[in-house]
Amino acid sequence: MSLSMSSASLPVLQTMLNNLSHILAKGQAFAEARKIDPTALLQYRMAPDMLPFTRQIQIACDMSKLGVARIAGVEAPKFDDNEASFADLRGRIQKTLDWLATVPAAQIDGTEDKEITFPVGREATRTMKGEAYLKHWVLPNVFFHVTTAYLILRHNGVELGKADYLAGAQA
Amino acid sequence: MSLSMSSASLPVLQTMLNNLSHILAKGQAFAEARKIDPTALLQYRMAPDMLPFTRQIQIACDMSKLGVARIAGVEAPKFDDNEASFADLRGRIQKTLDWLATVPAAQIDGTEDKEITFPVGREATRTMKGEAYLKHWVLPNVFFHVTTAYLILRHNGVELGKADYLAGAQA
Repeated sequence: MSLSMSSASLPVLQTMLNNLSHILAKGQAFAEARKIDPTALLQYRMAPDMLPFTRQIQIACDMSKLGVARIAGVEAPKFDDNEASFADLRGRIQKTLDWLATVPAAQIDGTEDKEITFPVGREATRTMKGEAYLKHWVLPNVFFHVTTAYLILRHNGVELGKADYLAGAQA
Repeated sequence: MSLSMSSASLPVLQTMLNNLSHILAKGQAFAEARKIDPTALLQYRMAPDMLPFTRQIQIACDMSKLGVARIAGVEAPKFDDNEASFADLRGRIQKTLDWLATVPAAQIDGTEDKEITFPVGREATRTMKGEAYLKHWVLPNVFFHVTTAYLILRHNGVELGKADYLAGAQA
């Protein structure tokens, strides 16, 4: 085994998305057991000017999908941002995982020095080499949004532990 | 440029620790400007059974330090967990960065299949191969604790944005 652009990206993203889905399942079960309106969790923000829970999941999915698509030079499917429940959001994660599984590792490998230009905010773009884009943009962003989703649920009383974040359903 | 165990670890950890130090500087300035007792932030927990801010920083440092030490097969320095201020915590980060800079890349490279046994909790150990340990343990943990520290400050009113998390003082 040796590190490559595919082995440094796909398994990490897939593991974290699977763990995120597991974390959402716990959030859903918590809301059902307590008869809590799920919207209270789905729209919760860690700060008034931060994005709500639902957007954290959408962005974790899109950063994984678009990150790999840009590195591999393939087209990613477009998903509408219309999820309104934990089940919808878990569906979004599954669609993302299903698509990631179709990207051949060979298409991702050897892209360390490939220049990748991507949008930043609404008007700017940024260009990074493939390896830096993966290590300093895609991975930090995906981990950020998975952790934020975890903390929103944790902060609201869902019983979660580090094992849920690190190992998900395999914990 | 091609991916290796050193290039997939050191620059990622170093970048995130530098960004964390920058985030702490913003937290410190916020507390000073508002005449807030820094302890209110340093001891803040996202949930009553989560670790406080100070521990998030200590663990981000130690996971970086011990992760690299175990992968490289070198001894890491021991730091006492006695930080009582933002400045102390930034010092801990700097000591960690100073030590990471002394670990030769060649000592880290080629360890993809090396078996690494590490403590989990107080009584158990776990064994993973070097590549999996880096990708599925060290990096997810470091990102988790950096993000948690960021969110604790953000949740408490410190003006932080994604650029602080991704690029720190270079933003």
